[in-house]
Amino acid sequence: MKLANDDTIIVSATQLENLIAEIFVRLGVPAEDAAYQARILVDADLRGIDTHGALLVPYYVKKIQNRLINLRPQMKVIKETPTTLVLDGDNGLGHITAAKAMERCIIKAKESGVALVGLRNTNHVGCMGYYVIQAVEKDLIGYIVTDTHANLAPWGGKVPMLGNNPFAVGIPAGEELPIVLDMAISVAAKAKVIKAAAQGRRIPEGWVVDANTGESITDPEVIVGPLEKRKEFLLQPIGGPKGYGMLVVNTILAGILTGTENFGPYLPAFGSQFTKVQHLGVFMAVVDITAFTPLDEFKAKVDDLICKLKSSERLPGVEEIFLPGEIEYRTKQRRLVKGIPVLRETWQNLQSISQSLSK
Amino acid sequence: MKLANDDTIIVSATQLENLIAEIFVRLGVPAEDAAYQARILVDADLRGIDTHGALLVPYYVKKIQNRLINLRPQMKVIKETPTTLVLDGDNGLGHITAAKAMERCIIKAKESGVALVGLRNTNHVGCMGYYVIQAVEKDLIGYIVTDTHANLAPWGGKVPMLGNNPFAVGIPAGEELPIVLDMAISVAAKAKVIKAAAQGRRIPEGWVVDANTGESITDPEVIVGPLEKRKEFLLQPIGGPKGYGMLVVNTILAGILTGTENFGPYLPAFGSQFTKVQHLGVFMAVVDITAFTPLDEFKAKVDDLICKLKSSERLPGVEEIFLPGEIEYRTKQRRLVKGIPVLRETWQNLQSISQSLSK
Repeated sequence: MKLANDDTIIVSATQLENLIAEIFVRLGVPAEDAAYQARILVDADLRGIDTHGALLVPYYVKKIQNRLINLRPQMKVIKETPTTLVLDGDNGLGHITAAKAMERCIIKAKESGVALVGLRNTNHVGCMGYYVIQAVEKDLIGYIVTDTHANLAPWGGKVPMLGNNPFAVGIPAGEELPIVLDMAISVAAKAKVIKAAAQGRRIPEGWVVDANTGESITDPEVIVGPLEKRKEFLLQPIGGPKGYGMLVVNTILAGILTGTENFGPYLPAFGSQFTKVQHLGVFMAVVDITAFTPLDEFKAKVDDLICKLKSSERLPGVEEIFLPGEIEYRTKQRRLVKGIPVLRETWQNLQSISQSLSK
Repeated sequence: MKLANDDTIIVSATQLENLIAEIFVRLGVPAEDAAYQARILVDADLRGIDTHGALLVPYYVKKIQNRLINLRPQMKVIKETPTTLVLDGDNGLGHITAAKAMERCIIKAKESGVALVGLRNTNHVGCMGYYVIQAVEKDLIGYIVTDTHANLAPWGGKVPMLGNNPFAVGIPAGEELPIVLDMAISVAAKAKVIKAAAQGRRIPEGWVVDANTGESITDPEVIVGPLEKRKEFLLQPIGGPKGYGMLVVNTILAGILTGTENFGPYLPAFGSQFTKVQHLGVFMAVVDITAFTPLDEFKAKVDDLICKLKSSERLPGVEEIFLPGEIEYRTKQRRLVKGIPVLRETWQNLQSISQSLSK
């Protein structure tokens, strides 16, 4: 473990994985599952998505301590055909249930050319990129979408009824890094809005609107200032009504098609995350490229597209053009060698959690 | 035919279909195909998407007269499995080839639970909604995506290399109208930007940027003003880098996975639309809901979601909350009864085209 600066320490992926796995084991998760869960979480830290890795462990710990997650789930096949599968996650940890569902989706897609899996009754699955990379590593195209607690209103409405419903698509390349698009459908995440406001920065136009007037909010004081200045705000979907439409579609795929218990407006609100079971849905698809076109040809064309895009003349101030997922892959390559910078507070927090659980 | 106002006349869908079909027949399209093509085009007019119906007929006529479209294509199966199909459109009219490909995708999905079709070497397919509605009418979920000529740059770049790559998703409901999301990935279409500018309106922030500086353009004069004021501009993807990522994914699905001849940066530029064959790709998927959850249950939940969203308290000035596709369905219901308002100029233009072809 090395010191990076006063706030941050550098740990290896293995150190971080071991600490996180230990916590889950001490909570009662079987060792193999705990290791899998830790691997998926640390993969987010490795890829630079620091909001979705170690930082979230205390959140899962609290949910587990409040008996909202089943530590020894029996995932059940509800319905299966050669191309489709409906799995009940039995309220297990989101990450493991989703990763296991994706494993099965991959096997089925290799046999049938394409496979779809609907996973019901699970929990927060974290970073969506991980699961489509499972498919990419087998030279397949992967897709995944989930439903989340409501924080966006229908277009023209005042009441949050739709989650920011993230999805990911992973596409293999040849010599180049794979394409991994991993995005939520709000312009900016709520945490990003609050962070910007807390730093006193002007909120960019289009991120949030006043929940009562629909007018754009740019003044950070309205978000985090003195109580009398604060207003209720709504996150905005990308492209306005277009993103709203995507939210509706994603709610239906993840929340209704999967047959899970809760969807959209019925998902427990963020405020009840430590008192209510989520019963989230996740929908995924895997496509075998060779059913359409020879793999080498496909990869060569994807490489060619990537090179073309990267070689575009750039706008002033832009040093490099990136493909979706490229920054995360490069960060992972670097962090695997040089270690992961983790907030000292996060690391100490995880250590105390682990110690308190060993008693 | 009734007079609506000085600029517009009201015609029935049948009148419009007959006139358009006649034009295609006179150009040499077999009668059955001409009728199908006309039906798809007029469906856009019926649904209020006036930019993609009768208005575009002269564009297709010119392409046909320049021998860029094969009027008697032999669609060919390149590769087929029970779940996947690769079709060569033989450079036929985009609308008919896409609709026929979707017909086959539907049949396969009913047999296999899910089916994917890659259509290569076709032309502009017009309104994407039509094809997913084919699936919706059979109680299936439909998806379609296409590649278009490049008019957006990679994120941070100056050079248009990606189309606005529209896609559509259709989802059946029960008592409510189906969900039909049909959208391009640019914030606003180029035609919309030019129309706003021509009316002297300020261009909304986020629609376009200066292709040299990346700075937002809001002054209409920069788009359509005196030549010395004009600047090259770039359309912006929804959600900035998020929409850019979606453009890359859609380019790969429609342009590379289908194995079509041209994709992304290689598609003929808009300026060469009347001199070069497009060789466009279209990718589609159909999902059988009953492979996941009973149809009645699914539909009841979709209805419930629709009602919930529509009943949201509304922002000031908002009279009603709409679901994706709802306005188009309602417009169609109205126009089927009351007729379609068509620009007098468009109607007269179509009539003269038809007459000139009869000679």
